[in-house]
Order: sequence, then C-alpha cells, then structure tokens
Amino acid sequence: MDSNAADLLEIERDAYGVRGVVGLTLNRPDAFNALSEALLDELHKTLTAIAQSDARVVVIGGAGRAFCAGHDLKEMRAAPSLEHYKALFARCSRMMMTIQHMPQPVIARVQGIATAAGCQLVAMCDLAVAADIARFAVSGVNLGLFCATPSVPLSRNLSRKAALEMLLTGEFIDATKARQLGLVNRVVPLDALDKEVADLAASICAKPVEAVSAGKALFYRQLEMGVEAAYQLAGQTMACNMMDDSALEGVQAFIEKRPPDWHR
Amino acid sequence: MDSNAADLLEIERDAYGVRGVVGLTLNRPDAFNALSEALLDELHKTLTAIAQSDARVVVIGGAGRAFCAGHDLKEMRAAPSLEHYKALFARCSRMMMTIQHMPQPVIARVQGIATAAGCQLVAMCDLAVAADIARFAVSGVNLGLFCATPSVPLSRNLSRKAALEMLLTGEFIDATKARQLGLVNRVVPLDALDKEVADLAASICAKPVEAVSAGKALFYRQLEMGVEAAYQLAGQTMACNMMDDSALEGVQAFIEKRPPDWHR
Amino acid sequence: MDSNAADLLEIERDAYGVRGVVGLTLNRPDAFNALSEALLDELHKTLTAIAQSDARVVVIGGAGRAFCAGHDLKEMRAAPSLEHYKALFARCSRMMMTIQHMPQPVIARVQGIATAAGCQLVAMCDLAVAADIARFAVSGVNLGLFCATPSVPLSRNLSRKAALEMLLTGEFIDATKARQLGLVNRVVPLDALDKEVADLAASICAKPVEAVSAGKALFYRQLEMGVEAAYQLAGQTMACNMMDDSALEGVQAFIEKRPPDWHR
Repeated sequence: MDSNAADLLEIERDAYGVRGVVGLTLNRPDAFNALSEALLDELHKTLTAIAQSDARVVVIGGAGRAFCAGHDLKEMRAAPSLEHYKALFARCSRMMMTIQHMPQPVIARVQGIATAAGCQLVAMCDLAVAADIARFAVSGVNLGLFCATPSVPLSRNLSRKAALEMLLTGEFIDATKARQLGLVNRVVPLDALDKEVADLAASICAKPVEAVSAGKALFYRQLEMGVEAAYQLAGQTMACNMMDDSALEGVQAFIEKRPPDWHR
Repeated sequence: MDSNAADLLEIERDAYGVRGVVGLTLNRPDAFNALSEALLDELHKTLTAIAQSDARVVVIGGAGRAFCAGHDLKEMRAAPSLEHYKALFARCSRMMMTIQHMPQPVIARVQGIATAAGCQLVAMCDLAVAADIARFAVSGVNLGLFCATPSVPLSRNLSRKAALEMLLTGEFIDATKARQLGLVNRVVPLDALDKEVADLAASICAKPVEAVSAGKALFYRQLEMGVEAAYQLAGQTMACNMMDDSALEGVQAFIEKRPPDWHR
Repeated sequence: MDSNAADLLEIERDAYGVRGVVGLTLNRPDAFNALSEALLDELHKTLTAIAQSDARVVVIGGAGRAFCAGHDLKEMRAAPSLEHYKALFARCSRMMMTIQHMPQPVIARVQGIATAAGCQLVAMCDLAVAADIARFAVSGVNLGLFCATPSVPLSRNLSRKAALEMLLTGEFIDATKARQLGLVNRVVPLDALDKEVADLAASICAKPVEAVSAGKALFYRQLEMGVEAAYQLAGQTMACNMMDDSALEGVQAFIEKRPPDWHR
C-alpha cells in the first residue's frame, strides 16, 4: 500500500487559499493515517525542507475520517526488539522536535480522532484547530503500552491531573474539553474548519517573517529557563527584532497612522 | 483519642468493590481528620508498604464530614521550637512525596472540606474525584502561617495567579472551580462519589501493571526535564514497556481484533 | 507633556479606602499610559521605595480609558540603535522583576485595554482584577515586533498554545477569556471594579505581614525548583514562619476559638 513514499504525505503549496501556507496531509486513510516508519521519515524530510524554505505557515491535517491513530502497530509488532523500538521512538521524537525547531508556526487541523502519537502530534504543533467532532486520547495504556513520548508534550499543554487521567485511563475527551484543557486553540463545526484554519494561518502570514520566526524560537527557549534568564534572552531578542527593517517600518507606520509598507 | 495508631487510618483491601484497590480512610472525624504526627507516620508507613505490594490503585478518603483539615494545630502549638517545626514539615513532605514516588496511582476521594495540608494532599494525589459539596482552601494565612509546603503541589496543579490568590486570601473555592482550575479531575453529587471513584479505579486496574507503574514514574521524572531530555527518557521507557509481555500481547490482540489475554 | 516626572505616576496612600494599600496610577491618559522611559524609571523608583516601606499591598491602575498600551513607540522609534533597545528592554524587565521581588503583593486593576508591555504588566502582577470591558493583547507582532519580553510572564500564566496564539496573531481576548486562561483572577462590571480591588486588598492586609511577605518570596522561588528542592525550601520557610509571634498567636487563637490579637 505504501509503495510510493510521496503518496504517504500530500504536500500543497499556498494551501487553504492562503499564500505562503504549506498544507501537509497524512495520507493513509485506510490505516487511520498511522505513522508508519516511512511516513515518519517522509514527515521529517518534508518538515526539514520546509524549515529552509520561504514558506510562512505549515498546516498538518489527515485524509479521511481520522486525524492520526498514532504509530503503525502492525509494523511495530512485526519486529519486536528493544533496539528496534528505541530507534523507532527516537525517530518519532526527532520528527516531533522538528516541529518545534522550525521557524514556521505549525497548525494542526484536526478533523477526527487523534490518538496516541496522533494526539502527541496535536500537542507538539504550535497551534491547533479542531472540528467539534474531533476526539482525543492517549490510548496506548489500553494495550499495555503507556503513551510515554506523547506524555512529554501533553504534560506541557495540560494541567498535570488532566494529563495523567488521560494517560492512565486511555479515555477519549471531546473537542470542547480539549480546548478547555489547552490542547487545542479553537473548535468549530467541521464545515467551518478549513475557513478557521485559513483565517488563523492568514493572520500569521500577514506578519513580518522576522518577528514570527525569532518570536517562535524565543518562546520555546525561554520556557525552559528561569524567569531572570528568560528576560535576558527575551530582551536581546526583542532589541534585535526592533532593528529589523520590518519592525522599524511597522512602528513608524503606527506612529504615522498608516498601514506599514512591507511589500518591498 | 489517638491511643491506637491503627485506628487513625482505616485500611480496606479490594475497596469500592474493585479488586486491587486499597482504600485508606483518614479516621479522626472529630478532629476533621487533621494530620497529627501519629497519622502522618501511619500514612507514610502504610503507603510505603503498599508501594511494595501487588495493590494496583490507592484511594485516600476521610471519615465524617471533612476530608482533611491539615496539620493538627493543637499538637503543633504545644511544642513551639524551630527544630520541631522543621522536623514536622520534613516528615509531612516525605509522606507527600511517597505518593508521587510509589508505583500505584493514588486517587483522592474528597467528600468535604480540604484545607491547608488537606488541600495539599489532594494536590499531591495523582488524580482526585470530589463531591460537589467539597470545598478547598489553603487557609493557613488566616492564622498568620502561609501554606508554604501546600504551595508546592498547588502551584504545580493550578495557574500561578489562581494559586497565589488562594494562598494570600485563604478563601475557599468550591468543587466546580477546583475542577476548572485543575485541582480535581471529576466532580459528582455526594451520593455518586463512590461509584465515580470505583469507575476511575477500575479503569486503571484493567490496564497491565507494567504500563501503569512505569508510566507514572516517567510522567513525574520527565516533567522536571527540558523537552529534549524528556523525550530521550520517554523513548527509552516506552521501548522497554513495549518489550513487556503484556504490551506485546496487547498490541497483538489489537491487530487481531480480539481482547488481550492478560489473565496468565 | 511629561515635564514633571511626579505627574506620570500618581501615588495614593491608603488607597481604595483600605489602610496599608498604595495605589499607583499610570497617568498618561492621552498616550494610553504608554510606558515612556521616564514612566518606567518612575515606576521602578516608586516600587523600590515601597518595597522598603510598611505598605502592605500595591495596586497598579491606569488613568483614563486604557490600562496601558505598552512601550512609548514614538520615543522608542526616535532613537533606533541596538544598544538603545537593549538598554530599554533591560530597564523595563528590571522594573517588571521588581514587582515579583518586592515583599508586598501587587494587584493589577485593569479597567481598559492592556496591550504589549501593558499586558505584560498584568501578567507580572501577583494578582489581577479586571473590568468586564477590559481587553488584552500582545500586539507587537502586528507592527513586526514580536512581544518577546511580554511572552516571559504570559507563558508562565497561560497554557502554551493560548499564549502562542496571542503572540502570533496579536488578537485581543476579552476579560472573561483572560480569566479562563489564567491571566486575571476576577472579572466584574466596571462600576464594581474598585470595590472588588478593595475587597481583595483588604483580605490580604488583614493577614500578618510576616506570612504574606515570606510566602510571596517562597512562592516564586520554589516555582523554579524541582519538587524535592521546593519542598525542602518550603518546609524551612514554614517552620520559620510558624515561630513568628503572629503565627504562634494566630494558631493559639484558633485553638481557643477566639480572634487573634495582632494589634500590638
């Protein structure tokens, strides 16, 4: 089924009708878009390439009814060895971290269920928009496999008791609860999902690239620091950003009560 | 009143009608289940023993109308010395940390008020289910004693402004607000409390012990790490967990669309 | 306009009708209370002096319709140099950190918009009460200047996806959402704002100063520690606090079921 790697992941330029947006679609609908090793590699390769490109925003969605059901359990079970599993989870974690390290904001477009590493993928994205029918679970524990790697971003998005309840029970939460808990930003009816994703992406694309990329990098770096060190780094970042032509023009335009002229 | 230490803490095997659940009941109802030094020691001793046992889940509740009113102030006030208080809070903290360190998930069953170290006990438990009449406060500040040790888990459960408001005002919050803030997982009417606790405990008991214990330990360890180190530890943990017979069988059963055969 | 520095910041003793409360009012209503360098210095100087005084609580509000619109962009834009901007953000961060370091709790009284460093000021305060018409944004990105320094306290108040959405889109949130997200503690109609601030401040002023000041310092220090180290520090802090006359009297009064006699 997965003979052609390029088919595993659909890539669309200027997706959602917004210039600068790259739309990625996990394309294994018959397997609920499970993250086979080939798909993980394709995602990693594609995200790494986008990081070097002039794309402004990435949207990750899923084909068919599920967003993503996590790892490909059949493939995983076929080769049971500690070394294999260590390499597999390291490979998956590397892909997940690429999302955080790349300069472009990454939005999860969640139209259906997101389970295990699929839920992790939502948690790792910078932002997430969900259809009201989407549901979320870290359900590995139901099979005897605690969702350890998914717990890393989950516990950094949700309060700890909420995260632990999901991890220990494997139970689903709906989209509204996911929004209340901090796992997704916005919830809309399914037929309004693309419009909401487009609006969010367009809002970011309208900002100067320097501010967005430096800001995203700063955001995650300062989160892991004490508050004094965080302020020091943030102050330097902001001073450098202010010296960008785009910021100098943006602030000048604000003072002159006119729109900024960024279309140089 | 507390002549017999065993009476201070009731211990029930297969509690709430669920095999593998140990029910602990703070049993000083006339003292609002205040944590006297004897009760602290009894809790520590009991939790340490359970940690070594084949119990699967622990539920901590309180006898009478209060869940727990914190330290035993009469006992505390009777021996005013810095060394005494340092030893007391160290002893209490050691007991609290045992909850986090033990392999079994610990659920707080909160049927009434939980104040000061009683509120801390709820915050330290992995999960919490509350009756809708339960109320929560870190009220030491009303007596001139800031709830410093309770602030440790409280500030790791709630957003910081919410935690600080409770700590500085000493005011109560109700169960619904406690759920919204992240202090408890579920709120139900008092007469549905035991059923809700039983359901939650049974859900966890149905999972393989390896996944639950390794998962709980990983959860708290990775929370104190940077995200890269957290992923490294989580990946190793998950690879080891996947090599457990229970996980191999669970995943195989999932592939074969049958229930796992874990009753070896 | 800002010829007289003392006019930039109004200072009122026993403000809001509560003894011990210092009311500070950002007083550049025509400039939406933008934080000019003179105002930043005035705030820093005033907060540093209050820290040494017997004041019990500080309330920071804004004159006119806006709470605070952030940095004074005109002043900032007039002297574009990396060194200038580095010094400016360092100066601002120093003022912000004074709020956290001073022994008195600081309450933000937010009657209107709080944007960029104005939103940061709300986030840095220990507590915040907002009028229902207040709105919040970290809107620098709209001008090409990512709100890097505001992201430091914002990301320590809100869940990360909510913080990142505000930072990347620059969009406003209303007061109710700000409360749900953890940015403010309480939301009331504008005409009830002073009463709510007074009640909150009075509640804190009624507590012994030793408990409040030691507690606030402990709260922020332990937040940056691992949980074991946090417990150690908290236990020592609480033991010392318990030896204060005010705590010994407060606990004794509680035992004797009488109000504490703190009016020595």
